[in-house]
Amino acid sequence: MGRWEPDSRGRLQEVALALFAERGFDQTTVAEIAARAGLTERTFFRQFADKREVLFGGSAILKERILEGVAAAPPGDGPLDAVARGLDAAAAMLGESRRDLTRRRQAVIAANPELRERELAKLADYAAAITQVLHERDVEEPAATMAADGGMTILRVALDRWANAVDDSELRDVVRDCVAQLRAVAGGG
Amino acid sequence: MGRWEPDSRGRLQEVALALFAERGFDQTTVAEIAARAGLTERTFFRQFADKREVLFGGSAILKERILEGVAAAPPGDGPLDAVARGLDAAAAMLGESRRDLTRRRQAVIAANPELRERELAKLADYAAAITQVLHERDVEEPAATMAADGGMTILRVALDRWANAVDDSELRDVVRDCVAQLRAVAGGG
Repeated sequence: MGRWEPDSRGRLQEVALALFAERGFDQTTVAEIAARAGLTERTFFRQFADKREVLFGGSAILKERILEGVAAAPPGDGPLDAVARGLDAAAAMLGESRRDLTRRRQAVIAANPELRERELAKLADYAAAITQVLHERDVEEPAATMAADGGMTILRVALDRWANAVDDSELRDVVRDCVAQLRAVAGGG
Repeated sequence: MGRWEPDSRGRLQEVALALFAERGFDQTTVAEIAARAGLTERTFFRQFADKREVLFGGSAILKERILEGVAAAPPGDGPLDAVARGLDAAAAMLGESRRDLTRRRQAVIAANPELRERELAKLADYAAAITQVLHERDVEEPAATMAADGGMTILRVALDRWANAVDDSELRDVVRDCVAQLRAVAGGG
């Protein structure tokens, strides 16, 4: 298929997630993804460095959005308030994805130990970067690490809840609810 | 060295940590560890399945202690209170290790991406198991996940602080202080 393809990336992603779900991530090849999408392998590699990037592409941009959100928090914000602003920014970006694709992505990752480790490493990397931004806001240790780690728990839980929700709630609202839940869990006592 | 060796495990561990710190984990062989300890490779493999187990051995027992601690919490305990009991149990076990060995272990792991991922996976596994025990205590989602994840953040931070502390504080007290810090971070607002 040589013709110009306006959304080859989206189509490759959708087909790849379907194949990962059917056969498992390890058993799926780039050739198969491209073939089912009616595109060439070359087109695939113009969009993604490898098949893992179908699942983890965009994570550098997401990280940047989160960090900008945290950094832009008003000076009066406490550490978790500032992190919550970063999560709002994450929700604004991730909430534009189709929920069914997010759900499939999460399921593929959950089914594969290596992908789970990659996802954990990604969140740990975000947390370390958020901690850094909080330090620049004069938040001390261990408060900074705890707020950053708590933020990543919230992001993970909220994304799962949103992706699997039966209602049509917005990711942003699910995130905010999860922030409130963390406060309730940790605050009592 | 064929004679019976009462603490070959401890000696191998100490020598291994020293070599990991000097040369890096990947660059150290079991043969080198055994040689420097004045023991045979066979003795090494009687104590450890491989050199990673020098760093991660005992983690199944630790997990069990934590889960027992959480499960034994009085019915009136909130989710984070129950997790804190599990952390007390962890501190009782880990606090018996020599601080300098714990410090070296943490440094070796921090310096190696693969070991960091393994450590993250271990903590995620603990968190999932704690979440399960909290469910059995009728704690609902997302409170259970948040309390369990928060507990693992506390464990990680407290262990680092204790291992690198200049005073001779007890791990148990450092853990309790970190629980209080998490409450303060999340509770305000």
